[in-house]
Amino acid sequence: MVSNSYDTGRLNLPFVGICTFGKYPYRPDWEAIDADVAILGAPFDCGTQWRAGARFGPRGIREASTLFSFGHDGAYDHEDGVIYLSNDEVKIVDLGDADIVHTDTEASHANIEFGVRKILAANALPVVLGGDHSINIPCINAFDEDCARNGPIHIVQIDAHLDFVDVRHGVRYGHGNPMRRAAEKPYVSGLSQFGIRNVSSTTREGYEAARSMGSDILSVRQIRALGTGAVVGRVPVGARYYVTIDIDGFDPSIAPGTGTPSHGGFIYYEVLELLAALAKRGTVVGIDLVEVAPDYDHSGSTSTLAAQVLMNLIGRIMHARKK
Amino acid sequence: MVSNSYDTGRLNLPFVGICTFGKYPYRPDWEAIDADVAILGAPFDCGTQWRAGARFGPRGIREASTLFSFGHDGAYDHEDGVIYLSNDEVKIVDLGDADIVHTDTEASHANIEFGVRKILAANALPVVLGGDHSINIPCINAFDEDCARNGPIHIVQIDAHLDFVDVRHGVRYGHGNPMRRAAEKPYVSGLSQFGIRNVSSTTREGYEAARSMGSDILSVRQIRALGTGAVVGRVPVGARYYVTIDIDGFDPSIAPGTGTPSHGGFIYYEVLELLAALAKRGTVVGIDLVEVAPDYDHSGSTSTLAAQVLMNLIGRIMHARKK
Amino acid sequence: MVSNSYDTGRLNLPFVGICTFGKYPYRPDWEAIDADVAILGAPFDCGTQWRAGARFGPRGIREASTLFSFGHDGAYDHEDGVIYLSNDEVKIVDLGDADIVHTDTEASHANIEFGVRKILAANALPVVLGGDHSINIPCINAFDEDCARNGPIHIVQIDAHLDFVDVRHGVRYGHGNPMRRAAEKPYVSGLSQFGIRNVSSTTREGYEAARSMGSDILSVRQIRALGTGAVVGRVPVGARYYVTIDIDGFDPSIAPGTGTPSHGGFIYYEVLELLAALAKRGTVVGIDLVEVAPDYDHSGSTSTLAAQVLMNLIGRIMHARKK
Amino acid sequence: MVSNSYDTGRLNLPFVGICTFGKYPYRPDWEAIDADVAILGAPFDCGTQWRAGARFGPRGIREASTLFSFGHDGAYDHEDGVIYLSNDEVKIVDLGDADIVHTDTEASHANIEFGVRKILAANALPVVLGGDHSINIPCINAFDEDCARNGPIHIVQIDAHLDFVDVRHGVRYGHGNPMRRAAEKPYVSGLSQFGIRNVSSTTREGYEAARSMGSDILSVRQIRALGTGAVVGRVPVGARYYVTIDIDGFDPSIAPGTGTPSHGGFIYYEVLELLAALAKRGTVVGIDLVEVAPDYDHSGSTSTLAAQVLMNLIGRIMHARKK
Amino acid sequence: MVSNSYDTGRLNLPFVGICTFGKYPYRPDWEAIDADVAILGAPFDCGTQWRAGARFGPRGIREASTLFSFGHDGAYDHEDGVIYLSNDEVKIVDLGDADIVHTDTEASHANIEFGVRKILAANALPVVLGGDHSINIPCINAFDEDCARNGPIHIVQIDAHLDFVDVRHGVRYGHGNPMRRAAEKPYVSGLSQFGIRNVSSTTREGYEAARSMGSDILSVRQIRALGTGAVVGRVPVGARYYVTIDIDGFDPSIAPGTGTPSHGGFIYYEVLELLAALAKRGTVVGIDLVEVAPDYDHSGSTSTLAAQVLMNLIGRIMHARKK
Amino acid sequence: MVSNSYDTGRLNLPFVGICTFGKYPYRPDWEAIDADVAILGAPFDCGTQWRAGARFGPRGIREASTLFSFGHDGAYDHEDGVIYLSNDEVKIVDLGDADIVHTDTEASHANIEFGVRKILAANALPVVLGGDHSINIPCINAFDEDCARNGPIHIVQIDAHLDFVDVRHGVRYGHGNPMRRAAEKPYVSGLSQFGIRNVSSTTREGYEAARSMGSDILSVRQIRALGTGAVVGRVPVGARYYVTIDIDGFDPSIAPGTGTPSHGGFIYYEVLELLAALAKRGTVVGIDLVEVAPDYDHSGSTSTLAAQVLMNLIGRIMHARKK
Repeated sequence: MVSNSYDTGRLNLPFVGICTFGKYPYRPDWEAIDADVAILGAPFDCGTQWRAGARFGPRGIREASTLFSFGHDGAYDHEDGVIYLSNDEVKIVDLGDADIVHTDTEASHANIEFGVRKILAANALPVVLGGDHSINIPCINAFDEDCARNGPIHIVQIDAHLDFVDVRHGVRYGHGNPMRRAAEKPYVSGLSQFGIRNVSSTTREGYEAARSMGSDILSVRQIRALGTGAVVGRVPVGARYYVTIDIDGFDPSIAPGTGTPSHGGFIYYEVLELLAALAKRGTVVGIDLVEVAPDYDHSGSTSTLAAQVLMNLIGRIMHARKK
Repeated sequence: MVSNSYDTGRLNLPFVGICTFGKYPYRPDWEAIDADVAILGAPFDCGTQWRAGARFGPRGIREASTLFSFGHDGAYDHEDGVIYLSNDEVKIVDLGDADIVHTDTEASHANIEFGVRKILAANALPVVLGGDHSINIPCINAFDEDCARNGPIHIVQIDAHLDFVDVRHGVRYGHGNPMRRAAEKPYVSGLSQFGIRNVSSTTREGYEAARSMGSDILSVRQIRALGTGAVVGRVPVGARYYVTIDIDGFDPSIAPGTGTPSHGGFIYYEVLELLAALAKRGTVVGIDLVEVAPDYDHSGSTSTLAAQVLMNLIGRIMHARKK
Repeated sequence: MVSNSYDTGRLNLPFVGICTFGKYPYRPDWEAIDADVAILGAPFDCGTQWRAGARFGPRGIREASTLFSFGHDGAYDHEDGVIYLSNDEVKIVDLGDADIVHTDTEASHANIEFGVRKILAANALPVVLGGDHSINIPCINAFDEDCARNGPIHIVQIDAHLDFVDVRHGVRYGHGNPMRRAAEKPYVSGLSQFGIRNVSSTTREGYEAARSMGSDILSVRQIRALGTGAVVGRVPVGARYYVTIDIDGFDPSIAPGTGTPSHGGFIYYEVLELLAALAKRGTVVGIDLVEVAPDYDHSGSTSTLAAQVLMNLIGRIMHARKK
Repeated sequence: MVSNSYDTGRLNLPFVGICTFGKYPYRPDWEAIDADVAILGAPFDCGTQWRAGARFGPRGIREASTLFSFGHDGAYDHEDGVIYLSNDEVKIVDLGDADIVHTDTEASHANIEFGVRKILAANALPVVLGGDHSINIPCINAFDEDCARNGPIHIVQIDAHLDFVDVRHGVRYGHGNPMRRAAEKPYVSGLSQFGIRNVSSTTREGYEAARSMGSDILSVRQIRALGTGAVVGRVPVGARYYVTIDIDGFDPSIAPGTGTPSHGGFIYYEVLELLAALAKRGTVVGIDLVEVAPDYDHSGSTSTLAAQVLMNLIGRIMHARKK
Repeated sequence: MVSNSYDTGRLNLPFVGICTFGKYPYRPDWEAIDADVAILGAPFDCGTQWRAGARFGPRGIREASTLFSFGHDGAYDHEDGVIYLSNDEVKIVDLGDADIVHTDTEASHANIEFGVRKILAANALPVVLGGDHSINIPCINAFDEDCARNGPIHIVQIDAHLDFVDVRHGVRYGHGNPMRRAAEKPYVSGLSQFGIRNVSSTTREGYEAARSMGSDILSVRQIRALGTGAVVGRVPVGARYYVTIDIDGFDPSIAPGTGTPSHGGFIYYEVLELLAALAKRGTVVGIDLVEVAPDYDHSGSTSTLAAQVLMNLIGRIMHARKK
Repeated sequence: MVSNSYDTGRLNLPFVGICTFGKYPYRPDWEAIDADVAILGAPFDCGTQWRAGARFGPRGIREASTLFSFGHDGAYDHEDGVIYLSNDEVKIVDLGDADIVHTDTEASHANIEFGVRKILAANALPVVLGGDHSINIPCINAFDEDCARNGPIHIVQIDAHLDFVDVRHGVRYGHGNPMRRAAEKPYVSGLSQFGIRNVSSTTREGYEAARSMGSDILSVRQIRALGTGAVVGRVPVGARYYVTIDIDGFDPSIAPGTGTPSHGGFIYYEVLELLAALAKRGTVVGIDLVEVAPDYDHSGSTSTLAAQVLMNLIGRIMHARKK
């Protein structure tokens, strides 16, 4: 068995080669998805209320993800002694991006929804790279048939903002609305909203609506006080989880490259440990990571964070499934 | 007569004070505009096909414009010996920005149109700070009544791109469409499109349509070969001009902070001399300057250019009117 | 009662509109201040010993502060269930900037002092945006009459540096001197100097002088070891506090945009909790926040931090007063 | 005939999709190259004598090249009325990058040479994206068999520096040596070195050696004085040209993102017109474009320039072949 | 005794003067080193596997180090009451840089080794400023004679990556290899590898080899769980320590300016306290600090961190020796 | 004769070594200046009216100047066939910086004047690196004794701004005043002010005063229309010239890193040719180059320009003297 690319003649350093996610194969034919995990870019950012730029999120994350590709077969983590994502155990493909139509939110969202449906139809795990948080709306829309077959999903959100605005000035599908849209779905069984802090586009009425619709809202400080174990213990066990990660859930110190940064956020391991515990507690059936805006990310720190979180999360999900 | 702010006790260096355009008074009450020139921000950028960020154009231009405010009464130009924009001759106000509704192009454009109508109704010269070039569409829309009263307008465009796409994928009001939208108006008598070069969203069919609808298209090189005088001579004399300046008409060396830069553009004096000649050749009745994206403008050069062009253009227009 | 700007026809997204602090009204007439809180810019940075640039601090903070303005009436904090800064409870105005005279420290400081006196005379809370830390000197000077009427003030400083140099090479009014200048005032009853660490322009003799003049000096590590409660417990209860926040008291990870960064600083909640406790423990009668240098703040993190701290601090002070 | 991608259901805006050069198909199998033009990345930068970073040149150029891909079939140039690069006339593929072995110049160069040989064996035009200028050495090496069959090549270099150092301190294959290495080849019939100016690693002896080995050296000012026509007239007519473009041949105003910038360089149209004339005067059989260092290219201007030059040059070469 | 430079007529602010390390004297004559501590730059970065740029590390660190030079005699630390690095107790010189030969790893490393040997021969403490981590290889090589005389050294590494690759594709001396090279030395008695986390160029086999060759590997989380005291307690007491600090051992929030950042790293005081304890536990006989890449360090935070760590570490080492 | 540093064992690439100007020797003892040319830094920037930051100008220029140091003996210019600055013909030293006292313009200026006097007393050519343009004031002050011995000087200024403000708000020594201060000196025989354009701190009255005091003012466009020869012909022949170069005389496209950029400036060769002609027309006896602000110079273009201009100007001056 050939295990590493450098055994076949290429050293394949991170800075070499075309930037697909993790240097996994590019598969532009969405009718023939054959994979455990499928990456889809959703470069839409006209739902933003402050800085745009998340349209380049998929490109930024893809490029940063190559840093974690050293030509090895799998990624060894010395802290738990596991090799994650070995080629013979996990098959990952990159589908490219959904098509975006400027000035037209509806058409752009429809194209994203189309892609996620294709991934679900192929029984692969969708991992969607935003774009702004409004792209979560078509992602969740796409789960209706899947949930009809396999049961409802519970949303776990990592975010600084509640994103629970109903409608304001006619805006129902901006990046302040997705969690409200999700909560309205009959096949969404509940929401865990983690990291929420400080002022945002959601008013007190939005918070009250969220709680009344079954949301569990915790701030960063509340999560630190409770501890990871207790926090994860509040998420329904054995459920099907959809994980939506707004990069601004992290602290601006490590995620400056985003539209609406909010101080006092998570550090890396707080989120990783929470997500790792989640991967063991139930089944993660969908992921999106949104609001990475590379043009504000002068050192590349934010894109690197997004890639590092996704690589580790996918690895842990697939490792949990194997058992 | 008190002429300079430092005579009244303030040195008023450029870096001091609230950033209205040119430090002129802020007048949030649009029902009571009393001025020769009214500045309006139009921070909409969801019509972009490459980099967004022009939503911060009004703020960037306003801040840069304070560099040209040294507390003097008027700006002395030693090359022609004129003091432009003295307070007793020209009254300029800043109206703030039109309201923008994210995800909703139509509503955002309507708010811009509303503002321009208010300025025209007050008999002031509208100077609109974009935003992307799609904001030219509501600006031109707002001229219907004015033109019914005062006669048609001729559009003079400074731009790298023709922006003459009719409709594609349902997009009629993006930043690739404005000149087509303008050409369709019965009160637009013609277009002079200067600086057009290299590939863009307009196809050959778009160029042919433009020419058939009465557009005069010249590239930077063609303009250099002809000379400023000959170029201005092609613009109808004595007409009412609406000037739309896409900052990417300038060379990326001085205007890097824009969404879709195109090499081989104008240098500063080429445009200033052309506009100065225009101010003498007819009546400039409206101005927009679009596509300044400060987040890509690391040295501030682009915002400074936009402010410098506008200050000089407004000065020359007002000086011509005085005579 | 009209509560939100979007009820009156404007969505008023953060990126829209003129940049006054928090989009509060601009009041250039200092003779007619009618407010609970008055913002004053003090863009002086010639007191710096390393990087300048704090002259653009007021502009940077103002622009960042608009991120926290979503058109709501007040800011809801889900962690404590309070709506802060509702319009019917708190009136805030922005006075613009004090006039600065380059090459002349004395004249610049005098203009700042003049502004603070006007605010105090109007019984408003002065919130001064630096500028370098030397601008604290005229701020404290301005309190002489106020203290004669209302009693002395206790200084609470958040800073990496002690700023307790007496005179060196004739420099008495640079950014290394303000705490020494304050300690000399008969109406300054004491100083709490929090966050002080590593080498600075103050020598051992300066530390000894500070302690002998009644200063309580604590490093970040000492404060972490003591806990917020114990630290606040060392500040005289029920006193009148003047809070001076040098942004470099925070860690460079979140406050890189400053003149003299020092590693090992505070994270966001450490300072917020300390200030929130202070707002309840006595009466905050004056605030300055200094040393934000936007040109070194490529992601905007530092200006955002300054605005976020000020918005939350002002909210908590006003909330405490209400009770 | 389907001509545009938006006819088949995708608008395909420039910011959407995986970043291959010009969004042309990615073909990782180098044994089955079927194309008129083949793009190869050569991300080697350990031959640099000042700033490195050209290893990210291929990625930067590829990303920037997507700006010129608006989903059209071909690029219409209104100045000459030609549609370049229509899909039915020209087939372009992107091969990805040659493998680079850090610390090992020889192995890295061998891998680049291997790729160029594969392209030439497939009768495609090699377009190599550097990397530093040392990658020209393996490119020229790869032409030995091609030249044995088809005749010698004449090198046309656009550059600020002569790059004619023989050996110094054992360095024969750094970015100061390639033109000397090329001149030594029996199948290189001559060199035209255009844009050379100011001090560099080549000494007077290097200039004398170049001239004695048949090089025609012209500075930017000399070229401006002569005019494009006269300059191109000095290049042997009807020959097979290998074009090597060091991006620092351009002025730092438009190409700041490079290792060793030198003021006083070419503007865009000077080079484009020279290359366009060359494409008509003989047969361009190979191209490399080197020294783009995206990490110094904060506005993206340099990568955009590289992509714009290459797209236009390839278009003109293919157009000339068609006739 | 004259103690401060401002006593002799110069205020000597940090931004004034030539940038040697800490403004200590520049001594280009390596044959006459007369100092307790000697600084040597090693600007080699062709051993990198992702971003280069560490060649400018010595310049960046030197410039940042001037921030810690306020003209005082020594640096007072109020937390422990010590004045470190007073001129009468410690003599520090800056030797400039080792000569680097591009394209030639072996020659460059030999020049670095030569410099370190000169320092050791002069009985000074070598403090080497990288450059990438491969420059640790010649540093350790240079200790053979010193260790023959004075006994073996124990390596203490602060790093995100294990750097324990043996040979791959012929690469033995890149920045993924140095700890393996060190472990092979008979005069290296052991390694403490602190901060190691996430995927890197070292495979599981590399970790196993490291452990089998006597390495103690701890992640950041493991170190936090153990506590500084326990961690230092695992390092052999009373030994001769060589400290190698890869700046990426720190968190990207404070050290973004490096080639291969890895989230979840150390904060400032974690490392300082560990090194301070080490300085008391045995004898530090050599230091290198590597992988600072100033061109990715837009705010200067990383260079400042490197300088701050080195100034404090040298101070503590010299203070410990004094006793 | 040993001519190149690489003959003596060092390749001495530009990125290696301590950053003195041009890597020439550092001579901190100003009492023993033995050189033809002496470089002095004047890092004062509190005379600025917009962006500060020129205090880091000397460091930025010094670092950039190392790019032009390839270890050769002298710089060969193939356009005129001359080797400039060979070691056996010209001796250059770097004196470091004048001491700056923050908050104190007078003391800072006095220290600069002191340094220039020392250089003149040693019969060396002073080349002063600013700092803002106010540092020209002490430079000219220092020439009183020299002029008493050797005759008056004629000032040749390259600048966007006239800098001819007399006194305003008490400011006599800011960066808007130096040419007025110079014109007042009895030993200044006249001024040639080249490049002046657009609005600045000088009013019409200032222009009139300048002309009445013997100044010859020409804009960039006027100079282009006249041609270099005619322009230089207006400068008194055979005189002693003091050349003061404000980097903002150049176009912002190549000199963005400055405090008050003004579009429409000089390109590189326009200034070089003018200065080269001047070096032949009379005797250049002093030089300052001011207003380089590296923190706004993200690509390094401005510092590179400053270094390139100075290296070439010094070379041409020394070459002219030799004859």
